[in-house]
Amino acid sequence: MNLLLLDTDDFVAEDQVVLRGRRLQHLHEVHQASAGDHVRVGQIDGLMGSGALLELTADQARLHVQLDQSPPAKLPLTLLLAMPRPKMFRRILQHCATLGVDELILLNSYRVEKSFWQTPFLQPANIRENLLLGLEQARDTRLPTVRIEKRFKPFVEDHLPALSSDILSLLAHPGSATACPRDVQQPTLLAIGPEGGWIPYEVEKLQAAGLQPVHLGDRILRVETAVTALIGRLF
Amino acid sequence: MNLLLLDTDDFVAEDQVVLRGRRLQHLHEVHQASAGDHVRVGQIDGLMGSGALLELTADQARLHVQLDQSPPAKLPLTLLLAMPRPKMFRRILQHCATLGVDELILLNSYRVEKSFWQTPFLQPANIRENLLLGLEQARDTRLPTVRIEKRFKPFVEDHLPALSSDILSLLAHPGSATACPRDVQQPTLLAIGPEGGWIPYEVEKLQAAGLQPVHLGDRILRVETAVTALIGRLF
Repeated sequence: MNLLLLDTDDFVAEDQVVLRGRRLQHLHEVHQASAGDHVRVGQIDGLMGSGALLELTADQARLHVQLDQSPPAKLPLTLLLAMPRPKMFRRILQHCATLGVDELILLNSYRVEKSFWQTPFLQPANIRENLLLGLEQARDTRLPTVRIEKRFKPFVEDHLPALSSDILSLLAHPGSATACPRDVQQPTLLAIGPEGGWIPYEVEKLQAAGLQPVHLGDRILRVETAVTALIGRLF
Repeated sequence: MNLLLLDTDDFVAEDQVVLRGRRLQHLHEVHQASAGDHVRVGQIDGLMGSGALLELTADQARLHVQLDQSPPAKLPLTLLLAMPRPKMFRRILQHCATLGVDELILLNSYRVEKSFWQTPFLQPANIRENLLLGLEQARDTRLPTVRIEKRFKPFVEDHLPALSSDILSLLAHPGSATACPRDVQQPTLLAIGPEGGWIPYEVEKLQAAGLQPVHLGDRILRVETAVTALIGRLF
């Protein structure tokens, strides 16, 4: 963890927090901190700054915090992702938060196994926990929003055209004629399919909703690798 | 697996292979193949093509193969990587093979824990297995070369200058003044440090060996994420 993230409940005064659990353990075991030390802190969805350890025991850490720095800018990116298998989903949540994705939309697709939607990683508390791990890594405080769309057709027909209008809207699709653009630095929507790809019906529907198919070369990447490689190329 | 990779030992005739073990199981369980089916095949470090299943039993698969297609081009990239922790190392081997890295050099660094060098994933058979998994994913046949350099100073002083001369040589280093270039498409050497980064002495030595420090923005990425994001940006 490169940043100690603070939640509203941690504050015992305007400029003081008390921590227990995972973050306390981390201060002891990884930072090997002691009273008087300073650590980087940030308030979830708020400012970042410095925390001075007033007290550090086996039971709790008490810090005086000064929050005066803005978190890094988010990428102007909405990632529309076919729901991945649970273990990969967990890592992708962390990657998205670390890389600065602004919004993640999880969509159904023909090749998404029904069981993927049953994973406990989709519970709000677990989504939040994995996003926080990604933010701690990146030194960011602002949580990406996560939206769950379990029905492909109503979402793509009724909601996607409004999301994709007036912004760069791309569909990562191996074999398409156009290479993925680079260094776009503009509001972008990027759709990435499941392992095995979108089926032709889905590609048609996504194109009808305004998305332009682009490829990333001859190699077939795993979804997780494609997410990071495409973001590295686009921004 | 998007490509069935064939080893020299698999060939029972010039155009015929017999498979057992993991690949046989994959044909049964994932492809749900039967005699007469065609699958994509490739010879390790050789050509790709098509395999016709002549026979498929619980014990073995016999295929007639026709190898007439070149594998995709490798990236002109030597990745110089501080030895990562074992679980991440295993995934990075797969990513490197999938993304088309030509050469991977594993280097020691002050922040590499000694225990990382003890991992069984460094045994040649295990390195090869994970690279093959990455090639199968990408549809490539050519194994990246992997070189192990357990001593930082002799390698960086005596061997690195020759490797870095006349090619684009970059040192990924958060906080440096220059942003990582994009779309370079030329022979490149890229050094990526351990979690926590290279220490100042190492940065000095790497710069003295001809590497130029570049950054990838304000966010601190995990090594695994940095490898893929940087490759996505460079090529």
